[in-house]
Amino acid sequence: MALVNEHFLKLPDNYLFADVAKKVNAFKVSHPNANVVSLGIGDVTQPLCPAVTEAMHRAVDEMTTPEGFHGYGPEQGYPFLRETIIKHDFLPRGIHLDPSEIFVNDGAKSDTGNIQELVRWDNSIGVTDPIYPVYIDSNVMIGRAGEIKDGRWSNVIYMPCTAENHFIPQLPNHRVDIIYLCYPNNPTGTVLSKEELRKWVNYALKNDTLIFYDAAYEAYIQDPDIPHSIYEIKGARKVAIEFHSYSKTAGFTGVRCGYTVVPKEVTASTLDGKRVALNPLWYRRQCTKFNGTSYISQRAAEAIYTPEGKEQVKKAIAYYMDNARTMRSTLTSLGLKVFGGENAPYIWLKTPKGEDSWRFFEQMLYNAHVVCTPGVGFGPSGQGYVRLTAFGSHEDCAEAMERLKKWI
Amino acid sequence: MALVNEHFLKLPDNYLFADVAKKVNAFKVSHPNANVVSLGIGDVTQPLCPAVTEAMHRAVDEMTTPEGFHGYGPEQGYPFLRETIIKHDFLPRGIHLDPSEIFVNDGAKSDTGNIQELVRWDNSIGVTDPIYPVYIDSNVMIGRAGEIKDGRWSNVIYMPCTAENHFIPQLPNHRVDIIYLCYPNNPTGTVLSKEELRKWVNYALKNDTLIFYDAAYEAYIQDPDIPHSIYEIKGARKVAIEFHSYSKTAGFTGVRCGYTVVPKEVTASTLDGKRVALNPLWYRRQCTKFNGTSYISQRAAEAIYTPEGKEQVKKAIAYYMDNARTMRSTLTSLGLKVFGGENAPYIWLKTPKGEDSWRFFEQMLYNAHVVCTPGVGFGPSGQGYVRLTAFGSHEDCAEAMERLKKWI
Repeated sequence: MALVNEHFLKLPDNYLFADVAKKVNAFKVSHPNANVVSLGIGDVTQPLCPAVTEAMHRAVDEMTTPEGFHGYGPEQGYPFLRETIIKHDFLPRGIHLDPSEIFVNDGAKSDTGNIQELVRWDNSIGVTDPIYPVYIDSNVMIGRAGEIKDGRWSNVIYMPCTAENHFIPQLPNHRVDIIYLCYPNNPTGTVLSKEELRKWVNYALKNDTLIFYDAAYEAYIQDPDIPHSIYEIKGARKVAIEFHSYSKTAGFTGVRCGYTVVPKEVTASTLDGKRVALNPLWYRRQCTKFNGTSYISQRAAEAIYTPEGKEQVKKAIAYYMDNARTMRSTLTSLGLKVFGGENAPYIWLKTPKGEDSWRFFEQMLYNAHVVCTPGVGFGPSGQGYVRLTAFGSHEDCAEAMERLKKWI
Repeated sequence: MALVNEHFLKLPDNYLFADVAKKVNAFKVSHPNANVVSLGIGDVTQPLCPAVTEAMHRAVDEMTTPEGFHGYGPEQGYPFLRETIIKHDFLPRGIHLDPSEIFVNDGAKSDTGNIQELVRWDNSIGVTDPIYPVYIDSNVMIGRAGEIKDGRWSNVIYMPCTAENHFIPQLPNHRVDIIYLCYPNNPTGTVLSKEELRKWVNYALKNDTLIFYDAAYEAYIQDPDIPHSIYEIKGARKVAIEFHSYSKTAGFTGVRCGYTVVPKEVTASTLDGKRVALNPLWYRRQCTKFNGTSYISQRAAEAIYTPEGKEQVKKAIAYYMDNARTMRSTLTSLGLKVFGGENAPYIWLKTPKGEDSWRFFEQMLYNAHVVCTPGVGFGPSGQGYVRLTAFGSHEDCAEAMERLKKWI
């Protein structure tokens, strides 16, 4: 008799963005003439840049001839892309990586979800709170998160990030096996300084902790002192696996390409104390359950690093960061407390009177016809906050701000 | 202290195709002038067909404007593709599916590898032997396969498929929780009649067994009586999940697109006997650990089903099947025993004197400079066989046959 993996049944039925969509649809049905503007879901809206689409056309053309045809590529990604990544994303920051340490993928969600397969089911995990739901949910599915009670999983250590601690998570006061960090942060839009990040690397080195570091938004960093990669910190190569994405960097949410860095020095332990390198294990995992990313998407990613590509991508990011600035200044001028949005495409807004996140979400929807994402959906410490994103058009962003001005 | 998932360490270090590549490279180094022809690894060689590349160019162009830009698509795939699949792959065979039962993916390897996440780690699994290595290896990684001894995993039930039983696996004489079937079969190239497949569906219905049915090669079926989908068999909707791929159908090994069918009636049981539908669980799994397939790849897949696309794809398959015919007739005329290759792109060759697979592989490489894949690499019952593939060019195939004629 086939038995189901009952850990799946522990997951709450609701999924944050699905719930938001449902409520927005209900509003639209009852208000058919309302023109709803969304500052909710975090998808980009600007088209792909010319350097990228030209590269894709060329790649498609290659595939029309026997000589240019590309079938199965290396599961780990084509060397042309892995070498380009090293040269442009790491060498200028003084980080030396080998191509065998780069794993090209179909986007950071797959790898941030799958990476936990490499560790035992009973490792303890720590997360900053609020958090991108994939980190916890992927651990729930294998039983590592324990049971849920009052929105908290029994085997997860939550490290609150709120206005009170300036969104700087405290080091746990005991040993945690695996820690997820995401900086610039989704959903709060806040960052960690080199000094703060160093504390985490040192904690990991001292406690034999693995850090899963999600750098999906690093391209939005404006402040030259904020680290783009955890490997800017000495010792991180021994303890950290890092995730990168072209989704927000270059509008690849529909193209599907990103990469993961697994340095050769990163190890975990067997029960009897033997050290095991995770790089060959991840390689084996990818060779077994993944067949590489589309050749066309890999050529598209390569084009991001050309001089024209870099220029064009920078422009798109500047476009979104203009929105972030508009939102920050409008909301601040309205007397609201806002965080993030300076080195990230996300604004984290404290509800004015400490209202419940979902209640404030509904008020904003019904009074201003503007959609945000309730902060509590990202974890208990998100209660009393909502997330706004900078990914819309200038026009929509300006319109949303006008409406909030009138409403608040 | 982060502990490693020690199940990974049970996997033998060698991986079949990597081992083959290593031996071929060693040969090339010592024989720099030899012109090696490969009938080994199963990758296609013919370029993408015009209907497909035109659709891809159009999709890339769409992505250059704000109106045509596609960001995150539905994790399950775009409705335009799911509806097209139902209309062309299933309705003509009398199979009625709902779009919510189709999950578009980045190729069958990911889903055949990941599907086992839905069931408990201690379910028993049964496989036909020889077998595509992913089925077993993905179960090893989570501990379900047990320990390996003499090339056999302790918790895996092997169902031999050899010349002796005409490559028709016998029903197990006891209950097995999960069974992997792949027809047309990789590596043997053999097929199951409707009658034989019906026995498996009935076994599954009777024993509450789940069938993971890999139909990646169905487009190569020539005989009108051979089933293309397990859902052609009554009752299969209750017990079977089916995997499809465009890799071999339309040369998508570098494009990455396929799909999985999870009918709403397929269930597994909780420990206390409650039935749980697997369709919503797989949906939840995909929404958490996958972000959809490239929009461009999905438009490419859609184009396969246009009248021009169908015609062009058929031609490419006919091209490969010409190779299969050439190989079958040459090898048979040499007095060799060959199987498969009539409804599949694979030929399964019995070594003439019952030689060990690896030994025969090396003899063929050193004497004829032709690469095959040792059958034992696919499982214990593959011993004494090698696999040849029809995916090369006509010229290479003819050349390889000439050389085998001279050698054997």
